[in-house]
Formats: sequence, structure tokens, C-alpha cells
Amino acid sequence: MSSVKRTSRDIRTANRYEVLRQIIAESPTSRQELAAATGLSLATVATLVGELLDLRLITEVGFEDSAGGRPRGLVAVNTTGGALIGVDIAETYVRVELFDLALNVLARADEDMRPGESRPEQVVGHVAAAVGSVVTQAGVEGARVLGVGVSVPGQVDREGGVSEYAPNWDWHDVPLLDLLAEHIAYPLYLDNPLRACAVAELWFGAARGRGDAVVVNLGTGVGAGLVLGGGLHRGVSNSAGEWGHTTLVLDGRLCHCGNHGCVETYVGAPGIMLHLRELAPQSTLLHPEDQTATIDALARGVADGDPVALKVVRDTARYLGAGIADLVNLLNPEVVVLSSWVAATLGEPLLAEVRQAVARHSLRRPLDAAEIVLSPIPTDPVCLGAATFALEGALSSFSQRPARRAVPARSRTASAS
Amino acid sequence: MSSVKRTSRDIRTANRYEVLRQIIAESPTSRQELAAATGLSLATVATLVGELLDLRLITEVGFEDSAGGRPRGLVAVNTTGGALIGVDIAETYVRVELFDLALNVLARADEDMRPGESRPEQVVGHVAAAVGSVVTQAGVEGARVLGVGVSVPGQVDREGGVSEYAPNWDWHDVPLLDLLAEHIAYPLYLDNPLRACAVAELWFGAARGRGDAVVVNLGTGVGAGLVLGGGLHRGVSNSAGEWGHTTLVLDGRLCHCGNHGCVETYVGAPGIMLHLRELAPQSTLLHPEDQTATIDALARGVADGDPVALKVVRDTARYLGAGIADLVNLLNPEVVVLSSWVAATLGEPLLAEVRQAVARHSLRRPLDAAEIVLSPIPTDPVCLGAATFALEGALSSFSQRPARRAVPARSRTASAS
Ligand SMILES: [Zn+2]
Ligand SMILES: [Zn+2]
Repeated sequence: MSSVKRTSRDIRTANRYEVLRQIIAESPTSRQELAAATGLSLATVATLVGELLDLRLITEVGFEDSAGGRPRGLVAVNTTGGALIGVDIAETYVRVELFDLALNVLARADEDMRPGESRPEQVVGHVAAAVGSVVTQAGVEGARVLGVGVSVPGQVDREGGVSEYAPNWDWHDVPLLDLLAEHIAYPLYLDNPLRACAVAELWFGAARGRGDAVVVNLGTGVGAGLVLGGGLHRGVSNSAGEWGHTTLVLDGRLCHCGNHGCVETYVGAPGIMLHLRELAPQSTLLHPEDQTATIDALARGVADGDPVALKVVRDTARYLGAGIADLVNLLNPEVVVLSSWVAATLGEPLLAEVRQAVARHSLRRPLDAAEIVLSPIPTDPVCLGAATFALEGALSSFSQRPARRAVPARSRTASAS
Repeated sequence: MSSVKRTSRDIRTANRYEVLRQIIAESPTSRQELAAATGLSLATVATLVGELLDLRLITEVGFEDSAGGRPRGLVAVNTTGGALIGVDIAETYVRVELFDLALNVLARADEDMRPGESRPEQVVGHVAAAVGSVVTQAGVEGARVLGVGVSVPGQVDREGGVSEYAPNWDWHDVPLLDLLAEHIAYPLYLDNPLRACAVAELWFGAARGRGDAVVVNLGTGVGAGLVLGGGLHRGVSNSAGEWGHTTLVLDGRLCHCGNHGCVETYVGAPGIMLHLRELAPQSTLLHPEDQTATIDALARGVADGDPVALKVVRDTARYLGAGIADLVNLLNPEVVVLSSWVAATLGEPLLAEVRQAVARHSLRRPLDAAEIVLSPIPTDPVCLGAATFALEGALSSFSQRPARRAVPARSRTASAS
């Protein structure tokens, strides 16, 4: 039996994503402009626009004159047609954002998690409280929330809604969506930050309209979300992207995965801190228990020309560049995006060093084809990506034939929080 | 502008590949069996079967009884409906095979290339002579040869028919198809051995019916052909798969690409020979100027329990396992296939060591999903894959609407050889 089933239904869903993505990027717009931007035929675009209008995700907003021809109908995102919620469960905090359908942030709630406060019930409590808070803040009726996307670090069974393994909390097989469904009445979608950041870039960032892109996530953990053939590459069991555990130094530093010399042990925030400590144990840049404060201090140090800070960033970029060159050689992407908080904090100086290091390690042909950029997304890409999973869920559950209307991957109707 | 244009035409071509692949694997077969095997609807299968019948690639071969129902029409590959030629240009030889449409080898010609005999005109002369030989041997009329696929090592501009860079011969921007077209009158298709081996596995080997597969090529050079989402992943400039230049040992052995510590410098045939020489300079296993003889001797040594041979293979598997674990973690494939002559020669003992090494280096979830196998293809996978590119070309050039009949990517009509 073939495990490859590409149907016209799959391609219609992919094209529906593509058209909505383009309308969100440029509203108002005409069917003719959409056809030109997506490469789809005008007839296909007209059908897909009709479906999006039926779904009330977009709306007709008048006409524009075309030179000499008939006036063209314009459509735009129906910003008030529904709301989406994105949940970023991180090691030390939970952040929840509520978006309109143009993916503007309407409300935000942050909950700190103290060390030791990492039992699943505790985390679920924080998420439920923050979701309740954003709905109240935004004054959105529950019925208008189309879905809640939840990002949790580590290995995720997306279909089952299970956090299979979260290394920082030592979670194993936690049925996270079942627990959340006891408090949250909206359709729930689970995935991890790697894929959330990748889908955020695909819809709203540097990967939009690109066939092949790699979104390198630099935070406490490290990974690479893959956009291949214009869509998210998940792999056969939804665990693709674990680039952080690529061997960069055979027999190098011990990693929590059990392997030695993983990329993550050199370029994740704890790895960068370790390097700083080894280089200058007494440095005032070092905040031993605080990753965020240390990376902030390094960024300021680089701006001030501090030689230790410069060396730490340059060495980090050297490891990162060797690892990214491997991705460029292997996948031949159009763009490599540096995302997440370590990349955002170290910014342009890190990018400049990384570009040089990648150029030293890559083959010419794939190097010439690959742009390397910082993520252009100004808000939390994990919340944005998680909300996008909810939007994709809403789009996928729509069928032209009402009799065969599909059920969302994970639709819950337990009592509201 | 979007560079992502997935049209119903693309999907129809992909589905046509899928149906023909299945018919080649199991002839005769019914439309009902094809629908079950591919996951496509019976109506879609019926349309695609009709197209393949029109192309004379398949033929009606009678009926089978279905339990109680109407007899079902059977189709089979029209083995004599045309011929395909695959050309494997390697460092030391040119091999050409002529296939029927079931991809059985009907004729083979080998030409040795002496050291120094590597100017493009010399290589082209060998290819032209061997192509002429197989056509004569098989007694095939020129008109029945549907196309010639040509594999050349290194970086290839497929659309332009140019060998951009072949490291072992120091070729730069050689217009190989233009040179070949002066001698060969059939449609020509150019690509490299990585992708030839991958497409051979996709159509006829261990990647058939798998969504995501990695075909690791172990020869003089090393690379990884990628099958993602059920199709060959080429990357934005057709250079994906250069896994041989992944950094495995930061600041390790110098590679011809200019980088240090590349996978290829440890697990390519010259790297294995270097390791043997370092370990036991006087070993009788070593044939200093002959890679093939050395790898053959290592295989015999392992079978005889020679401790040096065992250590060389174990150490090679350790490097290989670390590198393959990176691919498993990053791409989460269903299957990893070890292909090309070094893998075929070292065989099961290498496979067993590689499996252990991959298990030591991979994360559990992607490891559990990934099978690791030797290529099951009994003939030269590069010739087979190259011929498959010609078959794909013939299938892609077919359109349902004669008025818009497409021209093959590289169709030449110069004088016959
Ligand atoms: Zn690791
Ligand atoms: Zn190299």
C-alpha cells in the first residue's frame, strides 16, 4: 500500500492557504492580482475566493477600475469575522495572544512559571487562566474563537494531542490536549515551537512565497523548522526539524539527548553561557542563573566593543555557520531565517558573522541560491505560528460538499473555562 | 511573486508517475487494484490509465473475474512499446544500459576511461560509442528510444544541460548535453548520481510508496538523495543532497571542497582507504591506487574475521552512523537506503554496524520511525535512475490537450550517432 496519497483535495487545501496568505499580506486585492501573485488560474482563484467568502474569513470591499475594462471586485480579510488564539508554553513562562483574522494581536496575557512549577496540571492551569484573560480583554464572544493553537517544547504527537517528551521538564506522554479540553471549549491544535516558528515565517515572514526555506530556531533549545515544496515538512512521525541534535563535533560536549557534540550544546543559550564562563569566568556579562539577562548583556557588550562579548558571538557564529552550511548543502533552500529570542537579541552582529561562516563552509551553487536573514516578524513568532495552526485547522475543516464536512484534527467541546 | 505554483497539472503528472510505478511493480493489474494501492479514486485512476494506454506505455491484457461482479479489465506494461537508455558517467568508466518499458536491461556497454582521459570531448566520445552499441545490440529502431538519461558526478544545471562543477575532473560549466547532442539524436536528460539513485529507489526500490526517504550514496563521493512528500527534493537550484560535505568533525580532515571534517572525507572510498593506511600501513588489504580492489579486500577481510578489516568497517560505520542519525533527526524519514558500490560491497556487516551507530546518536521518536536498509536494486542504480529520468520526461511531455503539447525539458534532433 502506498503511503503517498496526494489528492485534488490536498492540493485544494494548499491552494486555499496560498490565496488566504496572499490576501492577508495585501488587502484589498482583486482576483486578478491574486492569480498573478500565486500562479494559479483565474478560475481556480475565483473558486477559492468564493469558499473564503462563504467561510466569512474574507469580505467584498468594493471595486477598482481596470484600465478600460470592467471594474474589478476587491476582497479583503474580514478582520472581525473570527478570532484565533496562540499559546506559547515555554520553559519559564506561558504567553497567550488573541488575534483577529488579519493576525493582528488584540490581547496578550503572560504567566510566569516559577522553577519547580512544571507539573502538567500546573502548566494547564496557567494556560487556561491566560486564555480566559485574553478572551475577556478582547471582549470576544466565545462563539467567534475559531480555534486555539498550542505550542509546547519537545517531541509532540500532534494527532493524539500528546506531549511525548519535553526534555526540560522530563515530561513523558502527557495528554496535554485532553487536560486542556477540561478548561477550554474551543477546537485545540497541538504542535511545537520549531514548527510554529516555521509556519509563522511561511504565512507572514521571510518564507512567504518561497518553495524551500529553513527556519533556524535559536533559544534555550535549538532546531530547524523546514518549509519544503511550499509547505511545512513534518516527517513521517511529525518529528522533523531536530537539527539541534546534529553532531557538529564528534565526541564533543555531552548533550541532554545522550549524544556528544550536538549543535545545541554550542549555540543554544546554555551553550553560549558555558562558552562565556570558560572564556572569562569572572565576566560581569555572566548572570549564572539567568539566560535572558546573559544574552542581553552579551548584545550590549558587542555594541560597546567588549572583546569578550565579541569573541563569544564570533565563536557562536562559527559553530552556527558550520551547522547552517550543512543545511544549505543538504536542502538547497532559497532562504535561511534566524528566529527566536537568542537570534532576535544578538541581531545584526550575529547575522553578519553567521553569513561569513556559512560562506566558508558551503558549496558555491547552494550558497549562491541561499539568502540568510533575521526573522522579520515583530511579535512572538511562536504565538503567531500557533494561532496559524488554528487558522489552518479552520481552513482544512471546510469542505465544498456540506455532506462530507470534515471534523477538525482536534475539536473539543468540554465545558468552557 | 510566489515561486510556489502547485497546479492541477503538476499533481496530474505526479499521479501519472504513481500509477505507472505501480503497474511496473505489479503487472497485470486492474484499475480497482491500482486505486487501492495508490489511494487515488477509481475515476482518477481510470483517466490516468487511459492516458498511459494512449501513450502506448501500457496495454490491455484481458479480464479477471471479480467475485460475483463484472469481469475487470487488466492492464500491463507494454514492454515493447519503447526503449529507455541510462548513462552512468563515473570517474573511471562509462556504463550505458538500454531498458524496455518494464525497466528490464536489454543491453549493456561499458567503456573504461584511463587516468587523464577526462576531457569533455573524450567522455562524450565514450558515451556516444556506448549508446550506439546498446542500440545495435538490442536491435531497437531509433524511433522507439523514448529518451536518454545521463548521470554525471558533481553539480549539474539540469535545465541548461550543463555540468557546472565535477570535482574529480575539475570540470567547470561544461555544456554536456550540447556536446552529446552532436552525436545522439534522442531526447536527452541530465542529472547527477545522487538524484539518479534516489529516483531509482523511488520508482523501483526501497523508497517506493514511501512519503519520505533518504538514499545515502556511498562511493568515491558521498551524498544523500532526498525523497520528500513522495517526490524527489531538488532544492531551489537543483543542488540538494550534498550531504557528503556536512561537517562531522569540526576542524577535521581537509576536504576537496575546501571545508574541514566533511562526512565524505571519512566514509567515501578514499577516506576509508586513508583510515586503513593510518591503521595498518603494511596491510595486504591495501591497494594504494585502486579503490575498488581495496574495498573488495576489506569485504573479504571482514568475512574472514581479519581484525584490521573489522576495525576499519566498524570505524567507518561509526562516522556514517553519526551522519545518518543527523538525517534521521532532521528529516524524520520512513526509510534510509544505503546505495552505490561501497555499500553494496561491504553489505550486511556494514549495515549491522551502521544500525547500531544510528541508534546511539538518534532521538527516539524519529529513530523508531526509520528503517535502515541496503538498496534492493540488483543492477546499476545510476543507469536505472538515469533511464527513469528519461521515462519521467516522456510522461511529463504528454498533455491531454494536444494543442498545448509540451516539449521535453531537453529535446534534441541533431544527427544520429
Ligand atoms: Zn543532543
Ligand atoms: Zn567537503
